Amino acid sequence: MNSISRRNLLNAAASAALVSCVPHPVWAAPDMSSVQREIERRHVESVQRLQEWLKAPCIAAEDSGYDLGLPVFERMLKDAGFQQVERVRTDGKPGIFATLDAGAKRTVGLYFMYDVKQVDPKEWTSPPFEARLVDKPGMGKVVVARGAVNQKGPEAAFLAALHALRGAGRKVPVNLVLVAEGEEEIGSPHFGQVTRRADIAAALARTTGIFMPFASQGADGQVTVNLGAKGIVELELVASGEKWGRGPTHDVHSSQRASVDSPAFHLVQALSTLVTPDGAEPAIDDFATAVRPMSDADRKLVEIAASRLDEAQIKKQLGVTRWIHDEPFKEALLRSVSRPTVNIEGLVGGYTGAGGKTVLPHRAVAKIDMRIVPDMTSDGAAAALKAHLAKRGYGDLEVNVTGAYNPTTTPADSRMIRAELATYRRNGIDPVIWPRLGGSWPGYLFTDAPLKLGAGHFGMGHGSGAHAPDEYFLIESTNPKLQGIDGATRSFVELLYELAT
Amino acid sequence: MNSISRRNLLNAAASAALVSCVPHPVWAAPDMSSVQREIERRHVESVQRLQEWLKAPCIAAEDSGYDLGLPVFERMLKDAGFQQVERVRTDGKPGIFATLDAGAKRTVGLYFMYDVKQVDPKEWTSPPFEARLVDKPGMGKVVVARGAVNQKGPEAAFLAALHALRGAGRKVPVNLVLVAEGEEEIGSPHFGQVTRRADIAAALARTTGIFMPFASQGADGQVTVNLGAKGIVELELVASGEKWGRGPTHDVHSSQRASVDSPAFHLVQALSTLVTPDGAEPAIDDFATAVRPMSDADRKLVEIAASRLDEAQIKKQLGVTRWIHDEPFKEALLRSVSRPTVNIEGLVGGYTGAGGKTVLPHRAVAKIDMRIVPDMTSDGAAAALKAHLAKRGYGDLEVNVTGAYNPTTTPADSRMIRAELATYRRNGIDPVIWPRLGGSWPGYLFTDAPLKLGAGHFGMGHGSGAHAPDEYFLIESTNPKLQGIDGATRSFVELLYELAT
Repeated sequence: MNSISRRNLLNAAASAALVSCVPHPVWAAPDMSSVQREIERRHVESVQRLQEWLKAPCIAAEDSGYDLGLPVFERMLKDAGFQQVERVRTDGKPGIFATLDAGAKRTVGLYFMYDVKQVDPKEWTSPPFEARLVDKPGMGKVVVARGAVNQKGPEAAFLAALHALRGAGRKVPVNLVLVAEGEEEIGSPHFGQVTRRADIAAALARTTGIFMPFASQGADGQVTVNLGAKGIVELELVASGEKWGRGPTHDVHSSQRASVDSPAFHLVQALSTLVTPDGAEPAIDDFATAVRPMSDADRKLVEIAASRLDEAQIKKQLGVTRWIHDEPFKEALLRSVSRPTVNIEGLVGGYTGAGGKTVLPHRAVAKIDMRIVPDMTSDGAAAALKAHLAKRGYGDLEVNVTGAYNPTTTPADSRMIRAELATYRRNGIDPVIWPRLGGSWPGYLFTDAPLKLGAGHFGMGHGSGAHAPDEYFLIESTNPKLQGIDGATRSFVELLYELAT
Repeated sequence: MNSISRRNLLNAAASAALVSCVPHPVWAAPDMSSVQREIERRHVESVQRLQEWLKAPCIAAEDSGYDLGLPVFERMLKDAGFQQVERVRTDGKPGIFATLDAGAKRTVGLYFMYDVKQVDPKEWTSPPFEARLVDKPGMGKVVVARGAVNQKGPEAAFLAALHALRGAGRKVPVNLVLVAEGEEEIGSPHFGQVTRRADIAAALARTTGIFMPFASQGADGQVTVNLGAKGIVELELVASGEKWGRGPTHDVHSSQRASVDSPAFHLVQALSTLVTPDGAEPAIDDFATAVRPMSDADRKLVEIAASRLDEAQIKKQLGVTRWIHDEPFKEALLRSVSRPTVNIEGLVGGYTGAGGKTVLPHRAVAKIDMRIVPDMTSDGAAAALKAHLAKRGYGDLEVNVTGAYNPTTTPADSRMIRAELATYRRNGIDPVIWPRLGGSWPGYLFTDAPLKLGAGHFGMGHGSGAHAPDEYFLIESTNPKLQGIDGATRSFVELLYELAT
């Protein structure tokens, strides 16, 4: 889920904003030259480590690769210096709990995912699990593979930072507590079983905050720092003759339609009640009751961001000519931060091939996502949907929730966010600060009670194509605005020093 | 289209009705023994001819096989005795116009299709284009291939009848005018260009009536004779950001939903207006205005048929527990004969794979069929749909009609129907007579003005699996209620003699 959180409005926005050079804060960390030398010396080793990992994919949606991929990941954590790497049993794929005790004063949390999205190899110009190095004009040398940017590239760069520190004879400046999951791409259904285990929760509670390694640079080098993310409920809404008690229990010839009810129309009629008559806004009873009004601080952040963004370019990138309700740009941005949504991700029922086929389908499915904002909860949103359907005669529809995250919020003045901003600024980047990502990730497991940690994404570097063909991560940059894997690695070293102070 | 007309309510019904032995009318034709011997003598030749044809499929939906399959079909017509076999140019695949002048008093029309439905070979237990002979328990030896029953098996049996007559030293008792098309499986988009060509129309006008060879026996041996068929409009209803001017012009991340409109919801809302609030009946403005009230004669036929049918078994076969509006069986049957319908054949939009994917699709499609009854027309129905959508703010939706037939009706006392009934009864079958098939075929090109011919389907014999895997046609029957290819062949000889009198 997080994986595609990059492709949000603000990322479209980022490429419209200018990279500005702001004064660097005073750098409190020791001289970086020996670490920098070590990063460069180990460049080939770092790339090969990443390639090895990319060649051993774990794909949750297909239940494949775990026997090979999980041991590779575990070994890489050990090699990077984690003294304890524990496989955590869940009701799904195992999580990982790893710790690195550096004898430091402070402890920092890390969130990793080790699974990747499924692929359709036919769509790729370079085989998705061969991790080939390819020249990308105007950018440099990239590694092309599923998982390259989402999330192994940035994660491997973080591990390279630990190797470089050790190679330079340095101690890691903070202790590390790492939690990882292998089901991020199917909505983290069991990750709470990792973070809530008593000893793991206790270890996380001792951290200053937690972050996920991330290639945060857009194609123009710009960076957005998000202070939170919407929650999400992903679900399938299924109408079937069997559950309805009307219509057929298997596909029949459409000549039967005169005397046989249509589950597909039943679904369509249910769906049409979920939004206002113009289709623009959720109309699910009691769905948005818990929405907290937007704070003045958040509104101010949006206004600042809006002033830096190029509306025309964003519209062009999205292929959109007008915002919902024909609202002005600022209203559209405020809405994206503050309003819950209901969306049809996909419709599938009956005959879906070329042309037509005269069937009366017994079953039709809508794939739905609902994005939620504080103080809504994923459980509350799902319950509101079910009650809404039942009240209108659609109680027979199956509501199969496949993934759910609560909203997550991290204060702008949290130590994690302040350290991120400082590190970016030291790298000549003035990030756009954005109150709430429209996309979703399981950060609520860290930011909600009892942990209440600051949590975010961090990392210089660039990549793209998460969930799409030809996913890539920049290895050797020829573009002065973009960092390759070594620059990403260095940014992690810098962040750790920043967090250590 | 015709191809699956078999799988209608009455076919389900037929297997519930009993095969009854009724007195045979006086047989006016000459002694059949020499023809029967010739049919048996040529059995292997007939089967091999069918197999050769099945191995050379023309698939309109895939635009494949015409270079090989069409010449095979043309040669078979010539070999069977058609003196003139002309390839008729259309805006699509060629039609065929063939004549056999036997110097007879009467002339009979024939409608053939030479294309077949596409296949998914993985679903077949026997390769779909190898035409293997397979033992089917309780039935006998069948040929398994795409096109076996729909329509090459019956058509090849008809050609075998011509070979047998010649082999027995007989003249064909009637002259023949054959029209054929190679696009039946995509809705006969250009067949009117064949039947309406002046010389072809003139030749058809001289016929007593027209029929399509058909394996009309259900698995229990029973036969239904249809006096017509509903018409159909098949279309795709497409909502897109591009045409709407709202929403995106390509799929974007679903986090955009707060400020970007959803073409998928736009489609869903349009669809929900096409039916009554309970989803049961069409609610398209002016759609059913032209519906002619059911005649007393048709009502009587339905009542007779209803008394012969086993409602419980039909419901079981359809997987239906209640009819629309919870009506009784007879009302459901009357409705299937007399009422127009609107049906969703398929829904496809956005992400349709396993699980979910957080996209906001730019496009969504509903595959729709509308069945129409006299005096509705396919053009009128499509126009009503478009006007209905435009009036409600859905004028941006594309209405792409992919196939359309008007309704077709043949009087019960037409020469063709009387000859069919007489021939079936001579074979010990008391057919169910049904006013109007719920499925559709392009019979209106024959029954509408100016030709106004009687038109129907005819043939002893059995097969199943049209449009489905493991389609078969019975070659050598071990079931006394079912005829194999030789019995089918003989029934065509008998029909021609019947029509000659």
